[in-house]
Amino acid sequence: MPPPTPSPKFQGWLGLDKSAAEGNMVWQQFPNPKTWQETDVEIEITHCGICGSDIHTLRSGWGPTPYPVCVGHEIVGKATRVGSKATKGLKVGDRVGVGAQNSSCLRPDCEDCASGLENHCVRSVNTFADKYPDGSQSYGGYADYHRCPSHFVFKIPEAIASEDAAPMLCGGITVYSPLRENGCGPGKKVGIIGVGGLGHFGILFAKALGADRVVGISRRGDKKQDVLAMGADAYIATEEEKNWHKTHARSLDLIICTVSSPKMPLSRYLSLLRTKGTFIQVGAPEDKLPEMSAFHFISKGVKIGGSMIGSPGEIEEMLQLAAEKGIKPWIMRYPMREANKAVVDFEKGVPRYRICLVNEGNVEKQRLGS
Amino acid sequence: MPPPTPSPKFQGWLGLDKSAAEGNMVWQQFPNPKTWQETDVEIEITHCGICGSDIHTLRSGWGPTPYPVCVGHEIVGKATRVGSKATKGLKVGDRVGVGAQNSSCLRPDCEDCASGLENHCVRSVNTFADKYPDGSQSYGGYADYHRCPSHFVFKIPEAIASEDAAPMLCGGITVYSPLRENGCGPGKKVGIIGVGGLGHFGILFAKALGADRVVGISRRGDKKQDVLAMGADAYIATEEEKNWHKTHARSLDLIICTVSSPKMPLSRYLSLLRTKGTFIQVGAPEDKLPEMSAFHFISKGVKIGGSMIGSPGEIEEMLQLAAEKGIKPWIMRYPMREANKAVVDFEKGVPRYRICLVNEGNVEKQRLGS
Repeated sequence: MPPPTPSPKFQGWLGLDKSAAEGNMVWQQFPNPKTWQETDVEIEITHCGICGSDIHTLRSGWGPTPYPVCVGHEIVGKATRVGSKATKGLKVGDRVGVGAQNSSCLRPDCEDCASGLENHCVRSVNTFADKYPDGSQSYGGYADYHRCPSHFVFKIPEAIASEDAAPMLCGGITVYSPLRENGCGPGKKVGIIGVGGLGHFGILFAKALGADRVVGISRRGDKKQDVLAMGADAYIATEEEKNWHKTHARSLDLIICTVSSPKMPLSRYLSLLRTKGTFIQVGAPEDKLPEMSAFHFISKGVKIGGSMIGSPGEIEEMLQLAAEKGIKPWIMRYPMREANKAVVDFEKGVPRYRICLVNEGNVEKQRLGS
Repeated sequence: MPPPTPSPKFQGWLGLDKSAAEGNMVWQQFPNPKTWQETDVEIEITHCGICGSDIHTLRSGWGPTPYPVCVGHEIVGKATRVGSKATKGLKVGDRVGVGAQNSSCLRPDCEDCASGLENHCVRSVNTFADKYPDGSQSYGGYADYHRCPSHFVFKIPEAIASEDAAPMLCGGITVYSPLRENGCGPGKKVGIIGVGGLGHFGILFAKALGADRVVGISRRGDKKQDVLAMGADAYIATEEEKNWHKTHARSLDLIICTVSSPKMPLSRYLSLLRTKGTFIQVGAPEDKLPEMSAFHFISKGVKIGGSMIGSPGEIEEMLQLAAEKGIKPWIMRYPMREANKAVVDFEKGVPRYRICLVNEGNVEKQRLGS
């Protein structure tokens, strides 16, 4: 019998109350990391992207958060322990990643898990601020280590840098999944509303999937050059271009909306759709949607839908596509030790277009091969 | 040169102001029927169904109505004049029908018309209370005669009685089109909300299309026996069955909603959908939809859409299916001369489940072969 594997020190940036969202996280040991199971993988974290969900959770924006909480669900690092029942051929030393989902029931009688829609399983466990079936809490990636069921751990293709892979695991997949599922590809004209972390991935993936035309849509014109540089064919600045909803009416087959506010001009967005077009809301806003009349749907036979991250199968597919097409997200790196500053900068809208925290201690450790 | 065809007397029940909806239509000559074109067909009306749109229009419920108006867009009768440029091989004497749409541009450069989505053409002309390109007004089927471009005139299959065919041309197609388009058939579980004229067609067509399970959904239980007799597999009375939205959660792939009110329990309806399910709003309510949060869409990746009548191609297909499967709608017949009473009864909720006006004079005339 081999000697028991020593547990690493699970410590990271903990939010203790709502003020954590204002840059008041504290570096501490986790009270009680996930109970180890032989289906799990342990990851020495080198990179973790910052997602809007982190901030929503830190400030209890979606309801009460179970403090103390460690957020971050765009995790990349090195597998340092792989359970005897882990799947996917994962092994110690692999460069791997974890997204926003940490677990699902994987039962054969679960309609969602059995059909490759694990992301919709009602027994899903989020990567942070959630509870595993055994009662232990999930802690995210603003940390040194992460423990996760292997089904939700992905090998990162060699062609993708860790800092680029990390933000794909939530920000990327959240737009990739609805693009793929709603037919983004040759023959299709696609609009991406909101040019932040998600929106910039929307432009990159819509182009990589071969859409005929990709249009970035934002309120102001200041991101236009960036969006065109990402590969978009056109840009609409809704607060600067008068009558944009008429000029560009019926020009798009599919719109992915990464923003949400009761004040957003939803009926004007819908005017951009062609007959039978599709509008997909992603991300998870704290607000209600604007009031709608059934006429908005009926006159052109359009649909509004939602999409939530993506399945493990889609994540693998996205990583392959990103590797093959050399997709290069626009990333700003912050040292993990400056996570509080990074969170504050994120809320200020500083990122162009996604922030990735770098755990420099672990990077150095892995560089030295320890 | 043949002698000019004598024009029939275009007369019918005219609404002169909002009070028409309360049973105050008057039988009068149309001020100015559609200008004859050689692509047109003239129909001696024997049957006309009563649709909710008729009442909405009579009372200016969708905005100001251009009185005087003659409503009715579920028209069946005999073709009494067929233009030299009429299409579809129509000929004088054919039993034909017209639905809610009377005209579209049919230009090859119209995306909608060119792709068989004439019902979404922006240059569509409604069968009543609308204007043709030449400025003449459209008048509906509570009348003796109707004039219509042949592209929107359908031969009625022999197997379908005129009184059954008429309500299919708007009420039927309005539910048939979204059922067909959203995959209703073997392997699918389908719910129909609201059991009125449209809803009862929903049950009939969903069964005819081969859905595994068809569920009627209404507020009260009083229509349960009827709905089961129409072929439904189950019935949910939302005001009588406590926790129905939990008991039946995730049980349906597709819901067609024929009712609308800001008070309808939309989020509970959505709870009935399985992951990736579709909810289609049909009909055209005067009200807003209930307020929604993006979470309603995101958590299960569902879509809400709208659907507006159906294309001519779909109408032909529906009539064929109805003939083949012997679909028998539940119709109440009223003499055309009692149209005012019929309209009042419609609003009272009397119909079980659709009212068809019978122009007895024209029926008799055609029986005598004149």
